[in-house]
Amino acid sequence: MGLSRIDIAMADKTVTYPTGFKAAGAHIGLKKNGKSDLAILASENLCTAAGCFTQNIVKAAPVTWDMELLSRNKPVKAIVINSGNANACTGNKGHEDCETMAERTSWEFKCSKEEILVCSTGVIGVNLPMDIMKSGISETADLLGSDEEHGVACAEAIMTTDTYMKTAACEVTIGGKIVRFGGMAKGSGMIHPNMATMLGFVTTDCAITGELLQKALTECVDSTFNMITVDGDSSTNDTAIILANGMANNKIVDDEAGEDYRIFKFALRAITKKLAVDIARDGEGATKLMEVTVNGAKTYEDAKKIARSVTGSSLFKAALFGEDANWGRVLCAMGYSGGYFDPNGVNLSFRSYGNKWAEGVLLMKDGAPVKLDEKQAKIVLKEKEIFIDIQLNDGHASATAWGCDLTYDYVKINGDYRS
Amino acid sequence: MGLSRIDIAMADKTVTYPTGFKAAGAHIGLKKNGKSDLAILASENLCTAAGCFTQNIVKAAPVTWDMELLSRNKPVKAIVINSGNANACTGNKGHEDCETMAERTSWEFKCSKEEILVCSTGVIGVNLPMDIMKSGISETADLLGSDEEHGVACAEAIMTTDTYMKTAACEVTIGGKIVRFGGMAKGSGMIHPNMATMLGFVTTDCAITGELLQKALTECVDSTFNMITVDGDSSTNDTAIILANGMANNKIVDDEAGEDYRIFKFALRAITKKLAVDIARDGEGATKLMEVTVNGAKTYEDAKKIARSVTGSSLFKAALFGEDANWGRVLCAMGYSGGYFDPNGVNLSFRSYGNKWAEGVLLMKDGAPVKLDEKQAKIVLKEKEIFIDIQLNDGHASATAWGCDLTYDYVKINGDYRS
Repeated sequence: MGLSRIDIAMADKTVTYPTGFKAAGAHIGLKKNGKSDLAILASENLCTAAGCFTQNIVKAAPVTWDMELLSRNKPVKAIVINSGNANACTGNKGHEDCETMAERTSWEFKCSKEEILVCSTGVIGVNLPMDIMKSGISETADLLGSDEEHGVACAEAIMTTDTYMKTAACEVTIGGKIVRFGGMAKGSGMIHPNMATMLGFVTTDCAITGELLQKALTECVDSTFNMITVDGDSSTNDTAIILANGMANNKIVDDEAGEDYRIFKFALRAITKKLAVDIARDGEGATKLMEVTVNGAKTYEDAKKIARSVTGSSLFKAALFGEDANWGRVLCAMGYSGGYFDPNGVNLSFRSYGNKWAEGVLLMKDGAPVKLDEKQAKIVLKEKEIFIDIQLNDGHASATAWGCDLTYDYVKINGDYRS
Repeated sequence: MGLSRIDIAMADKTVTYPTGFKAAGAHIGLKKNGKSDLAILASENLCTAAGCFTQNIVKAAPVTWDMELLSRNKPVKAIVINSGNANACTGNKGHEDCETMAERTSWEFKCSKEEILVCSTGVIGVNLPMDIMKSGISETADLLGSDEEHGVACAEAIMTTDTYMKTAACEVTIGGKIVRFGGMAKGSGMIHPNMATMLGFVTTDCAITGELLQKALTECVDSTFNMITVDGDSSTNDTAIILANGMANNKIVDDEAGEDYRIFKFALRAITKKLAVDIARDGEGATKLMEVTVNGAKTYEDAKKIARSVTGSSLFKAALFGEDANWGRVLCAMGYSGGYFDPNGVNLSFRSYGNKWAEGVLLMKDGAPVKLDEKQAKIVLKEKEIFIDIQLNDGHASATAWGCDLTYDYVKINGDYRS
């Protein structure tokens, strides 16, 4: 018996889409440009929570706070998130400030500070202005609301160099009950696998055990957030958190082998994938999204390493920006990826929507170059979404990674980020 | 008893500086811009030879040719090197063409084709125009000469996007005899540790065993060529070769523990370091050289990983271009390097020549930020050579790595390299 089809309805909504979540975003004064810089996301009741965090050994204060809290398997009431300051490399003062943020937020919900998660993103190495934070948390909490508008305000307040907000939402049926998911994320520099997104948040009203919630999040992050790269820099603050408040009233998802968990993970992956691809597309200075798919690898690990290496090559990223079909750089990046393949068995093609070569432009067949039709290649590379299809003919494993081009604007944005 | 001081006289010379070497460079028609594209480097007598090659599993045809030849420990007569075409990802035809290059060159020296090493650099995935190669090899061999002028012509012919030629030379006394070294190298994109230089060549008239020659080269490459990065892309063609023809008439260097070998390695490292730093300085589009030194690491491997990671960070490279003292990005890159350190023990400072702060601008002390004097930092960062000094306070190991800034011109050069 094969697996049954899963019906999923994607929606153009945000973190307030599932039942029982409230959100707010406001400008409290951390950013000089007057844009929103504080967000609060809260649930009416206490949530089961799970998280994935940066592998960087330099961890921002809020990352260590959240890791400690989630390791105790206690419920979570709300998340407070500031942009404009990462609270990373800030010494002991940074840890005290993070705890103060949790405490001040807990006062608004009349709960324990250990029920508040904290996230920060922005400049590294500068202590938070705590007078602004304290009053700002209170002012922002006063704005909380459960409608779409509040979800949007919340998603906007976590942005830094992002050019647009990143949200995702969907609805599935689990155990006869309608279950909803909402998500938001921010990029768009210091983006590289190993908890690639700087910040990603998912809400759901599904009832699910903490153990399965963590398992599903870890697996979905591994094949989505951890498969994107913008610049190869894994940040000090990368965090993905999911809150599940159980208000869909489904029978609790507690069987890893069951259909309910399969649907849950399918829906969660749809959310994390949408957010991850949006981060890659909106990479700092990016003009093009690339999706690299490796098929026919010996193992999944090989496929992952090869796909990620191609999306991370500065040389190929620059060629993509120049719309130059310099496919030798793809082979080069595959070769230093650390993933196994036989160079003599490689087929390689470039593809895009919006052109008549649905199967793409073949560049290499069985490891040897195919005469390149430059005109055809130009038409493909002019598009905004480029698909790099790699067939290794070594086995049956596949992986997909996402990235963007390397542009003048990436250099401009990062040449003087602090001012 | 301590080790005695080694007297070394650096010279502004090239590969023809040691006795008995001839060189030539010419334009034979591979490059569209009319610049030199074929080089031949030969010795009057047969040489002991050693090489280090790219770790990329996609290896260009000439790399596999040279690796095979050197693995047999047979002597070498000459090296033929073309620029403008990498002969990589070129299928079986590429291997045939490489062998033909060796054979045609061997005719000029009336030697076996197995005594000829071959190197190629340039565009990947295009077969060499062999009619041009065949006549070009013969024409270039006719130009061979042993003076400085010929060494310069040879060094110029191996350049691709390099903005200046890279050469080094020195003289030391080994066993009472004057021994000379000459070197040349090319960058300047696809430069990343794991045999970082695309091409580097050293000549010496020292008599030395093949075993010690390989050992010295491997060690020197490890701490020089393998410690530079321009863009994180390890090329398919990276090669470093040393030819030793013994014409200095010194007693053969054959004792690894002896003073002669110590002097030999000291001189060789001076050559490879000069060439490696020149490659980093002339990285594609680069305006600044960065030298990152990690002191106080637990192990040499930790120090290496941390230093290399900082030189490789796109974010920090862009900040350097913008002369922005964004030191948080240094900490971030240290943190994801894979090298061990305690973030709470780090001291960090930026330093340059040409300013009065000989000890540099201190940015972090014991893992906590130091109030930044922006004016002082600007003066340091305006210079062309920036030294990043990292003290980990974890142990006694040190390592140094070199890199460059990330600029608009890097994107420009690589956005349309092939045309």
